[in-house]
Amino acid sequence: MRLSELSAQSGVSIATIKFYLREGLLPPGERLSASRAEYNDVHLRRLRLVRALIQVGGMSVARTKDVLSAAEDDSLDQHQRFGAAQSALLGDQGPEVAALQPGEKARATVDELLEEVGWGECRGYPAYWMLVGAVASLERLGYPSDLAHLRPYASAAAPLAVFDLGVIGEYPPGEAQLEAVVALTVLNEPVLLALRRIAHAYVSGRTFSAGTGEGAAG
Amino acid sequence: MRLSELSAQSGVSIATIKFYLREGLLPPGERLSASRAEYNDVHLRRLRLVRALIQVGGMSVARTKDVLSAAEDDSLDQHQRFGAAQSALLGDQGPEVAALQPGEKARATVDELLEEVGWGECRGYPAYWMLVGAVASLERLGYPSDLAHLRPYASAAAPLAVFDLGVIGEYPPGEAQLEAVVALTVLNEPVLLALRRIAHAYVSGRTFSAGTGEGAAG
Repeated sequence: MRLSELSAQSGVSIATIKFYLREGLLPPGERLSASRAEYNDVHLRRLRLVRALIQVGGMSVARTKDVLSAAEDDSLDQHQRFGAAQSALLGDQGPEVAALQPGEKARATVDELLEEVGWGECRGYPAYWMLVGAVASLERLGYPSDLAHLRPYASAAAPLAVFDLGVIGEYPPGEAQLEAVVALTVLNEPVLLALRRIAHAYVSGRTFSAGTGEGAAG
Repeated sequence: MRLSELSAQSGVSIATIKFYLREGLLPPGERLSASRAEYNDVHLRRLRLVRALIQVGGMSVARTKDVLSAAEDDSLDQHQRFGAAQSALLGDQGPEVAALQPGEKARATVDELLEEVGWGECRGYPAYWMLVGAVASLERLGYPSDLAHLRPYASAAAPLAVFDLGVIGEYPPGEAQLEAVVALTVLNEPVLLALRRIAHAYVSGRTFSAGTGEGAAG
């Protein structure tokens, strides 16, 4: 397909596509003449992914490029590429958390939790530091941040990860699977947070509402 | 305590505290003279909360003010204040998601999910639209977004919400509890996302690693 069709099918403007091409977020099309190139479904899929990372994931162009490069590095095995993509993904979200200089206590709590759950080998991973920072914030503000308050979150995350990796495993190994890793990691985060907030609203209605109604109508 | 001590105890600079006071994020201290005021533990706790919302939650000053105002509105019952705070919280995170113009299909899927789980009364809440937007993104990118793929996320969120509200219920009703609602909603989001990513890394290591090691050393 031509550039104009790629734009129409993806809903991304021609100017933005040209920008992504210049930035290397999108591989070049097959050149037909000095001013025309042919694009295919790989371009379309990649374009949608880039758009999602930037719009839904709130990632910068530079960070999106890092994530895609990591996911495509052939010198790494699949688990390492997953880790590299995760690490790059975290880059946009971590700085404020990291800047809080997590204390030793938060780190000890997280280490104890990971040992207990059996994830001790993940110590030092990017997401590990994200967690240490988050626990340190809770602690500094005087909110509960001990094992008893973290355990239910680990219990919620564990079956989700098994489910997510199962979904990812259904994609053919290679670029499509790595795209799925990045896309499903980022795109399902708002799903999880939104459902937690909906559940909060529901439980709050049952617990704190001024009304008397125990049983909802209908 | 004086302004200098409030700064020392909170780790927030005097200039920033003065800015928060001007913006109304922090109630004024008790005036001792034209140039001096006395602050107490309420100021210290509020200052830490504001700092956390801005640094950890990535919220703007204006949005932080909205959240705190909603949480303090005496004309609302507790459940309504919770909702108002949630709604204000969402303001900073929703725009990109909302801009994607969720389709009818995503909405129908979400409605079906909420009916199934028993949360149908939460239709139309701010977090509902956050979820519809997230599901629409998955759908548009061609990633699984049907009931079967959303159900595990609802199953993970449900017990967490019961746990979270139990923690919140331990705070004395009034401002401290509403601060806890806001703080624990925001501060535990990175905890949950980090644990999901750590769990991903762990399961990915078991599933995709090039290595043979079934049993980890030690």
